[in-house]
Amino acid sequence: MSAPDAKPLPSPRSSSSSLTWQQIAKQAQNHRDATLAELDQTLPDISWELPLNVTELPKQILTARHISITETEPEALVSKMASGELSATEVTKAFLQRAGLAQKLTNCITELLPTTALARAAYLDTYLSTHNKPIGPLHGLPISVKEHIGMEGLSLNAGFISWHSNTSPSNAHILDILLAAGAVLYVRTTQPQTLMHLETSSNYYGATVNPFNRALTSGGSSGGEGALVGLRGSCLGIGTDIGGSIRSPAANCGVYGLRPTSYRLPMQGFGATMLGQEQIVPVVGPLSTSLGGVKLFMKTLIDAKPWLREPSLLPFPWREDAQLPLTAQGGKKLKVAVLWDDGVVKPHPPILRALRAVVDKLKDVDGVEVAEWTPYQHDYAWTIISSLYFCDGGREESAAIAASNEPWRPLSRFILTDNPLVKPLSVREVWDWTLKREEYRAAYSQLWDDVDVILCPVGPGAAPPLDCARYWGYTSQWNLLDYPSLVFPVTKVDVEVDAVEEGYRPRNEKDRYNYELYEPTKYVNAPVSLQLVGRRYEDEKVVEALEYIKEKIGLPFAKFV
Amino acid sequence: MSAPDAKPLPSPRSSSSSLTWQQIAKQAQNHRDATLAELDQTLPDISWELPLNVTELPKQILTARHISITETEPEALVSKMASGELSATEVTKAFLQRAGLAQKLTNCITELLPTTALARAAYLDTYLSTHNKPIGPLHGLPISVKEHIGMEGLSLNAGFISWHSNTSPSNAHILDILLAAGAVLYVRTTQPQTLMHLETSSNYYGATVNPFNRALTSGGSSGGEGALVGLRGSCLGIGTDIGGSIRSPAANCGVYGLRPTSYRLPMQGFGATMLGQEQIVPVVGPLSTSLGGVKLFMKTLIDAKPWLREPSLLPFPWREDAQLPLTAQGGKKLKVAVLWDDGVVKPHPPILRALRAVVDKLKDVDGVEVAEWTPYQHDYAWTIISSLYFCDGGREESAAIAASNEPWRPLSRFILTDNPLVKPLSVREVWDWTLKREEYRAAYSQLWDDVDVILCPVGPGAAPPLDCARYWGYTSQWNLLDYPSLVFPVTKVDVEVDAVEEGYRPRNEKDRYNYELYEPTKYVNAPVSLQLVGRRYEDEKVVEALEYIKEKIGLPFAKFV
Repeated sequence: MSAPDAKPLPSPRSSSSSLTWQQIAKQAQNHRDATLAELDQTLPDISWELPLNVTELPKQILTARHISITETEPEALVSKMASGELSATEVTKAFLQRAGLAQKLTNCITELLPTTALARAAYLDTYLSTHNKPIGPLHGLPISVKEHIGMEGLSLNAGFISWHSNTSPSNAHILDILLAAGAVLYVRTTQPQTLMHLETSSNYYGATVNPFNRALTSGGSSGGEGALVGLRGSCLGIGTDIGGSIRSPAANCGVYGLRPTSYRLPMQGFGATMLGQEQIVPVVGPLSTSLGGVKLFMKTLIDAKPWLREPSLLPFPWREDAQLPLTAQGGKKLKVAVLWDDGVVKPHPPILRALRAVVDKLKDVDGVEVAEWTPYQHDYAWTIISSLYFCDGGREESAAIAASNEPWRPLSRFILTDNPLVKPLSVREVWDWTLKREEYRAAYSQLWDDVDVILCPVGPGAAPPLDCARYWGYTSQWNLLDYPSLVFPVTKVDVEVDAVEEGYRPRNEKDRYNYELYEPTKYVNAPVSLQLVGRRYEDEKVVEALEYIKEKIGLPFAKFV
Repeated sequence: MSAPDAKPLPSPRSSSSSLTWQQIAKQAQNHRDATLAELDQTLPDISWELPLNVTELPKQILTARHISITETEPEALVSKMASGELSATEVTKAFLQRAGLAQKLTNCITELLPTTALARAAYLDTYLSTHNKPIGPLHGLPISVKEHIGMEGLSLNAGFISWHSNTSPSNAHILDILLAAGAVLYVRTTQPQTLMHLETSSNYYGATVNPFNRALTSGGSSGGEGALVGLRGSCLGIGTDIGGSIRSPAANCGVYGLRPTSYRLPMQGFGATMLGQEQIVPVVGPLSTSLGGVKLFMKTLIDAKPWLREPSLLPFPWREDAQLPLTAQGGKKLKVAVLWDDGVVKPHPPILRALRAVVDKLKDVDGVEVAEWTPYQHDYAWTIISSLYFCDGGREESAAIAASNEPWRPLSRFILTDNPLVKPLSVREVWDWTLKREEYRAAYSQLWDDVDVILCPVGPGAAPPLDCARYWGYTSQWNLLDYPSLVFPVTKVDVEVDAVEEGYRPRNEKDRYNYELYEPTKYVNAPVSLQLVGRRYEDEKVVEALEYIKEKIGLPFAKFV
């Protein structure tokens, strides 16, 4: 069928190339390095032995002006560009420079786009001077993009070597909207093999590491975004999330990240396996240096009425009237229920300390009521979601890996071939798991009563060492339930305070794995983040609740950059 | 898993009964007749040869008071009961009586519920006199219910003999809400074998016939509702629709019927095959003697926030602010695009005459702009939806029929075993058809421009003779696209005027079948209805547009009761 305006989703195809996977990977790295070399101010050759924490290096290398621009929050940047105080060109150059540096420090990008980005910035500067007004609400704002999201003519490979020659026929729908609103797309960021890791490692580029501690992961699957935004090589980036892929990197790298409810933001034009799968819906969402950036992203996209082109989306506006009971009439307090532990895997000491610190302060806030959230069968929730992730038994991923002879990354093995819940299902079995999903969602919905938001960990620890992110439950829980969930930075690991809980007896094998993973010195300087979760479709309320909480208790408690 | 409040969906199971299917059917008929015999005013024995048109008989048999009550529109009835002008008991008795009579004339019900309905009505009367206010917005209103929808302790058989002993553990969610709003549930109506016919015939009860012409079908699968509401044995009834099952009976029987957008009204607790299937989502909706009844039904259910219990539903309010451009600021006219013919099967002369009459009047309305709607690959749309209806190849339906040795009804054969598009699919094939569905939806969404609503036929003719409803395209089109679609009565077949189009050369086999079906005298007195269709989720706008059109051009053009 030829649709008048629908852009065909890119279809994965194997390469007929005679190159080895290593040669293809090398080509990709060379391409990336060539785009870095286009920068007009050459980056220093980072040849010294890097420290574990590289977050201070940009301040030593970049100009004061570039530091100041790149450390400005996105909502302030658009305001300064709209008024002409900053030009789009200058802002774009600053972010290109810092992103190039971030690549050298954390291995987080797949290509820079200096030529198109600077041409675009120049166009916007001309537009502003000609029309005396910005082109749209994002006028001049550089936005970073996970490589998963299609850009016209550029690679769309889902982390598989065999897909390297697959390119997007056109921009993804979300990019069209952001461009129309004035954004500058200047960099593409790394993704893991299969996209189904809570880390970011592929045979194209190896692992993306955490800027706060290079022995740790930046998280994933949007871990290129996590590292880049964490290092301020971007102030606003686009990630995707089907089990934690926005929230894990946001948490690991000390930035804000929102997994919105499904069918609110446009999804046309992404590259992945299992296209057409709807049992567990992936979503796209922002990572940002500020909560204001999260809101700007959501509002801009939804104000553009993306449902007119992509009719699977819901025609909700982004509600700007107060969603919280306390700010509306009635005076009910904001009821925050705390989930300390999901009953399956106990969080590490730094997470519980951060949660305790936030809760203690919340208890002193007049407008807040704190309650406990009793987890309801979170282990069973994992059984359901994990059974529905790969209804074809992971056949497409296995085929895509086999086609180039590239090796399986350890976390691809973990989630696919070593996962006893992954089996090829019949249509009736898919329906049965779907019914279980619906029953579980209905049961969970009865727990809310008058609770407004759930406060909980984002994972069972801060960013783990590479190849160790094996527990998804603290994020995938909310994917299964399709709840909006917002990650925010709180503090950092304190090796003096966050001692191992001696004598703890693990509840099960997953808990044992997580317990044994922890040793404070391994996690030195790692950001500690938390998550605020709302009922389905209450995205606005979750954002508003965090605005209120931030203001009342003064988050974050540590300085990150 | 045991959910705290989630009611398990009834699971179909074969009977271990040693009875033949004929004995089971006879039991069901005896049960139905016994419930009719409970009426305090005995119905006349309808032993005379019935005329084709039985719509005049209730006026000859019932009391003037009962006629007056049952021919009052639902929104007026609730107003009169709220003020105490009518009692719930008197209204319930009147509808029980007329429903009992409707059964004798059209074979439309599976059981009356006089004992529980009258006890409920008495409770409501006491409530009103004690509290001096109605219990809710539906206080005292009798509502008829398709047997598909579970009622505590009563049969839930989807038209399969083998499921006869399957009963509901509790009321369906929608019934809980309607009862809380003050409704009286007093009758259950017929459904066809498999639920997948646009008629209503089963081996339990045979065929439900059309009250305007008993040689014709009342439509289906909510054809018991169609006949009952058409005869004013109900003023508001509940149907379900996955391909036309609300709209076909509403159209055939000269009443209003709305297929809402999916996920707006509660679906928990229905009995059907293929539970867990989500590619083509069935919906529940109203059939009513008035457009006000449709609106009352929608608003009452959505105001109850059903999403809090059933989280698959969307937390949209029922929007009461004007949705039309002309009633809002700006003064743009209501743009009505007319789909005369879907390009696959040409509608019979009475349908085109009705459409022409409405369009001619619309052209004289200042606030309306009339345009043409060019159908876009409606034959391909049928290929997609028909491929997705039975992803398991119809295995569950075949097994449910085989389990009792009941015969296949002709229209079960038509849609399942004789349908070349029904095949057992792999998970990947389901994803592929889902992608095609999404591409088609995206393509179709580009056709709208500034059109507000589409005006079109509901089927390729008025109610067809029994076992001849073989073209679903005029309704299933909007199921595939998930567009809200509202049926309204316009006129009746006129055997003098609606002559066969001589010399017409059919385009294809379906068109030939439909063309050859038509002969004016076969369709004498049949209602002719039309359909108003809106963009996805624009249910309110469609209702508002019909209110406006009705008022401006004085619909319907014929008297039905």
